[in-house]
Amino acid sequence: MTRVIRIAAAQMGPTQRDDTRARTLGRLIVLLEQAAEAGAQLVVFPELALTTFFPRWMLEDAELSAQFEDAMPNPGIQPLFDRARALKIGFYLGYAERTSDGERFNSAVFVDSEGTIVGHYRKVHLPGSVEPIPDARYQQLEKRYFQYGDRGFKTFRGNKKLGGAIVGMLICNDRRWPEAWRCLALQGMELLCVGYNSAAYDPNGGDTESEELRTFHSTLVAQANAYMNACWAVAVAKAGNEDGAGLIGGSCIVDPNGRIVAAAKTVADEVIIADCDLDLCKQGKKKMFNFDAHRRPQWYSRIVEMGAAAPIDGDI
Amino acid sequence: MTRVIRIAAAQMGPTQRDDTRARTLGRLIVLLEQAAEAGAQLVVFPELALTTFFPRWMLEDAELSAQFEDAMPNPGIQPLFDRARALKIGFYLGYAERTSDGERFNSAVFVDSEGTIVGHYRKVHLPGSVEPIPDARYQQLEKRYFQYGDRGFKTFRGNKKLGGAIVGMLICNDRRWPEAWRCLALQGMELLCVGYNSAAYDPNGGDTESEELRTFHSTLVAQANAYMNACWAVAVAKAGNEDGAGLIGGSCIVDPNGRIVAAAKTVADEVIIADCDLDLCKQGKKKMFNFDAHRRPQWYSRIVEMGAAAPIDGDI
Repeated sequence: MTRVIRIAAAQMGPTQRDDTRARTLGRLIVLLEQAAEAGAQLVVFPELALTTFFPRWMLEDAELSAQFEDAMPNPGIQPLFDRARALKIGFYLGYAERTSDGERFNSAVFVDSEGTIVGHYRKVHLPGSVEPIPDARYQQLEKRYFQYGDRGFKTFRGNKKLGGAIVGMLICNDRRWPEAWRCLALQGMELLCVGYNSAAYDPNGGDTESEELRTFHSTLVAQANAYMNACWAVAVAKAGNEDGAGLIGGSCIVDPNGRIVAAAKTVADEVIIADCDLDLCKQGKKKMFNFDAHRRPQWYSRIVEMGAAAPIDGDI
Repeated sequence: MTRVIRIAAAQMGPTQRDDTRARTLGRLIVLLEQAAEAGAQLVVFPELALTTFFPRWMLEDAELSAQFEDAMPNPGIQPLFDRARALKIGFYLGYAERTSDGERFNSAVFVDSEGTIVGHYRKVHLPGSVEPIPDARYQQLEKRYFQYGDRGFKTFRGNKKLGGAIVGMLICNDRRWPEAWRCLALQGMELLCVGYNSAAYDPNGGDTESEELRTFHSTLVAQANAYMNACWAVAVAKAGNEDGAGLIGGSCIVDPNGRIVAAAKTVADEVIIADCDLDLCKQGKKKMFNFDAHRRPQWYSRIVEMGAAAPIDGDI
């Protein structure tokens, strides 16, 4: 079994609030076909790939409801699943999930190249707030619209065509939290897939980090966490100007040494490709990051015992 | 109280096995004086700053014994402490520690600008092996010569002249382990000091990572972990050719956005300087990395429950 898999990161340009689902699905299928044409066995789409980044608005019930998927797949999404299975290409897809109990999550599925859903993740690190900021044009209401992910961090195996890769999924803000990567790496993760929608600037006009700095942060955490966990990382943006709110691009594929091997150049729909040798993870996993030889978990207890930071004056 | 402190990273070039302690102490004092001349309030020296990186050899008892300090300070080191107190400059100093019980640690002390030892750390993440590699010219015997650090990760406060900074210390390989940074950041850490001796290549001639890649790794982890923990980081090498074994340079000072604000250009004795505004940590600590608002410790249990990685096939 070859362990080199060709992976596509399918960055999406903006999706506007008024775009139809059919239009967006059409874009996803075009990107899928471009990836397949380039010989990819796996394509990674962004977070909330089926809609605009709707947590930026306080939405009325009907419009909010229309952002969610009650099943995955469902008739509206089935053409993407069908096309992927016909092309024998696996995919990661972020979407807004609503369960039969009415629970709502910011979720992603991983479909292998036989068309089987082998991974299902619900975002743990929700940014934003429950209550809207008064009088602000744009909000970040993920904590209002979604419940915290309740499935933890689980790896799964890709099928033979995907090299039997041990895969982990994260969503957007999760990638900035080293705890999330480590929980996956402790299960042998070789490939991390993460889609994101990350603000390029404060859409309400505040004077905070520049788009360049935010893109640097996004790339930096993908590179360093890939290195420190000896895995490949595929980080994929929904990018560009969504109804006046900017999203960074910066989609990239990173090797287990933390080096960028492919990077998007635009903030539009764009497919980038890399051949990823899963066995390149071995060097790090056996030597520098040989967890068995070098980790000292007895000293890490604050990580699970503390939520907030609590400044403590140490003694000598 | 101003919270801008001027910090010097005092990179050291190589120290050879036959160099006298007096010669090395003289270099340290020269670097200290250069830092003070430049107006620094704090100078960070490397790991094992008083000796060559002796774990590269199987040493006879007498030579091994001579690498260790039985007290800190002690008469051989006192001139450095005296000069620092006279100049009102604090320092971080890595050294080989032997206790009155004969326990040996790879340690560092942090001395504030009044000459008081306010921090004492013993390296937790020891690389290398207990047993020597047969027939190899060079070894990495940290696990043989040192016990694992038994003090965990504790922050402490610098004095008023050091801005009352909440400081954490790590040593060398620790900096590649995000658990270590996080345990310190959970105590409000604003400044991380770390000295290192990191191989530039395999001194036994193996074909592994290049010096360029190893330096990239060192810088990458300082940048990303500073960003993900919203703190300043000062990472300082002992660098260059020690008796035929090369050490990377790459000493740097990193801001809480993960940007390098000062970097060494040589692999020799070299002082670099940066003005570090501790209040720049606030943006990250209050927003993106507001631990109280965004961490989800109930999902991190693998980090403390597992030492080695154990590939687990997830269910969907």
